[in-house]
Amino acid sequence: MKKILNGTDQVVEQMVEGLVKSHADVVHRVEGTRVIARNDKRPGKVGLVSGGGSGHEPAHAGYVGRGMLSAAVCGDVFTSPTPDQIYEGIKAADQGAGVLLIVKNYTGDVMNFEMAADLADADDIKVEQIVVDDDIAVEDSTFTTGRRGVAGTVLVHKIIGAAAEAGASLEELKALGEKVIASVKTLGVALSPCTVPEVGHPGFELGDDEIELGIGIHGEPGFTREKIMPSARLAKQLYERISSESKLLAGDKVVVLVNGMGATPLMEQYVFANDVHELLKNAGVQVEKTLVGDYMTSLEMAGLSLTILKLEDEKWVDMLKLPVDTIAW
Amino acid sequence: MKKILNGTDQVVEQMVEGLVKSHADVVHRVEGTRVIARNDKRPGKVGLVSGGGSGHEPAHAGYVGRGMLSAAVCGDVFTSPTPDQIYEGIKAADQGAGVLLIVKNYTGDVMNFEMAADLADADDIKVEQIVVDDDIAVEDSTFTTGRRGVAGTVLVHKIIGAAAEAGASLEELKALGEKVIASVKTLGVALSPCTVPEVGHPGFELGDDEIELGIGIHGEPGFTREKIMPSARLAKQLYERISSESKLLAGDKVVVLVNGMGATPLMEQYVFANDVHELLKNAGVQVEKTLVGDYMTSLEMAGLSLTILKLEDEKWVDMLKLPVDTIAW
Repeated sequence: MKKILNGTDQVVEQMVEGLVKSHADVVHRVEGTRVIARNDKRPGKVGLVSGGGSGHEPAHAGYVGRGMLSAAVCGDVFTSPTPDQIYEGIKAADQGAGVLLIVKNYTGDVMNFEMAADLADADDIKVEQIVVDDDIAVEDSTFTTGRRGVAGTVLVHKIIGAAAEAGASLEELKALGEKVIASVKTLGVALSPCTVPEVGHPGFELGDDEIELGIGIHGEPGFTREKIMPSARLAKQLYERISSESKLLAGDKVVVLVNGMGATPLMEQYVFANDVHELLKNAGVQVEKTLVGDYMTSLEMAGLSLTILKLEDEKWVDMLKLPVDTIAW
Repeated sequence: MKKILNGTDQVVEQMVEGLVKSHADVVHRVEGTRVIARNDKRPGKVGLVSGGGSGHEPAHAGYVGRGMLSAAVCGDVFTSPTPDQIYEGIKAADQGAGVLLIVKNYTGDVMNFEMAADLADADDIKVEQIVVDDDIAVEDSTFTTGRRGVAGTVLVHKIIGAAAEAGASLEELKALGEKVIASVKTLGVALSPCTVPEVGHPGFELGDDEIELGIGIHGEPGFTREKIMPSARLAKQLYERISSESKLLAGDKVVVLVNGMGATPLMEQYVFANDVHELLKNAGVQVEKTLVGDYMTSLEMAGLSLTILKLEDEKWVDMLKLPVDTIAW
């Protein structure tokens, strides 16, 4: 294992320190915790908290700031944060109007965020939660009952963030979040595995000419292994499954996110994005916005994911375009 | 070679297409060329053109837009764009007040940008150029006489971009650019090589426990190979050379850029940034702004570079903080 770090047991601690020292104008660390919170508070605004295992940077700390999250809770690498840490995040996010938790669908995360919500309830902080399960690759998986939450979560952060900034109530945000979650679908592909620092060896193996379709962001199994194929054919495979699941029809409007898993050059991501645009054009589907880059990574995994958000409401695009003050959006 | 692409000869063409389709709200392609230009033009503003070989994305097309570059010219992978392509970039950037070329110091780039400037002169477009040579690793190198231009170039884009937006003249921008270039120093390290698609195999080899200090962004040799070491020790090695070269003293103010080479997780970049902040704090040097992320990459090379800009003028920080409308800043 060749990584830039000081001792595998200090990696999350030092990452958090590096992050808040580098971006002290936008975020701070809640002292003694693994919580990254935004600097500006506004009484009466609903707080938004997300988080999960580390190793997916810039998710989620990179999306903390004006217009997006109030706080992000950083667990150990690929490990859910503990309920007490999440509870600290809820307290940091609370501004008197309740707190919405945006949780990726992994058994540990769901359980720990729920326990944290119970702790907050006892403190009279009103908490609701929404669970993102955008990965259509498989039902149930390592760490998950139901579908996994992956890169589509970032679009949920952005839309809910814009609505919260505009003054939506906790109930309205929860309802909006559930509507967005129902409309966002993702599929990923891995070209190479990644290594959790404390483990020290890759989480799985792939042959020199093999790729895995439907991979999870922790290297959980996908639905098939195939030989490396041209980008256009790969795009077609991922797109057709998503399109079928989302029942995309000519005239539909969508937002596209091509997400690099960590070690995939932007050059390849844009070649793939070009192929996706071609498929959407041929299907008569209108792309209202496209994002390309490393939004939710899996350490140094090579690969990418395709997320398509079907716009059930055209206002979602405006919400996605609203300027924010975060590290990574 | 396992990459997401369709034929190695189409990779830059399809990347350019994917990029302009994905970000049509910010940039467009000058038809029939490899030039990415910003959508808004403003008569009387000096045009800013950069570019170079592809494979360093988001540099330079990601920095085209309001507040930064007017146009970027994309060469083949790790290959300078041709003079006629650069000339197209100059024409796209010209708004009647002249055009400044921001060139990284590689023999091919310098020669081709100069030839393009001559073509433009013949057309009565006034052109000046500045050459960035921030990499202090080695004097002369593969493809270079003198020092190489690397990640510090992005800070030059940003400061010059802000000044141009504020109405500075061509002569003022050239003088400012030269001052910034003299104050910005960079050193890189590689943990793994990268593969140019048309070549098909890695550009160099490194042992399982080896790193190369002073590496160039095309994999050009650095100044030493060592065993992998803790981040804090690596940071110290890079920092001390830069500090000595820049004659950093207690009380000095700086901007720090930790730049991922392509396959380095943000987690590692932040661990390293934390170590750099510690070194600067101990030296009594004040950090006015820090950037962390993949700003100028080398395809899927693992590694990073450290750039320190010594602030000879405090206004440079405001210029770096000015909001822009680009894909990647």
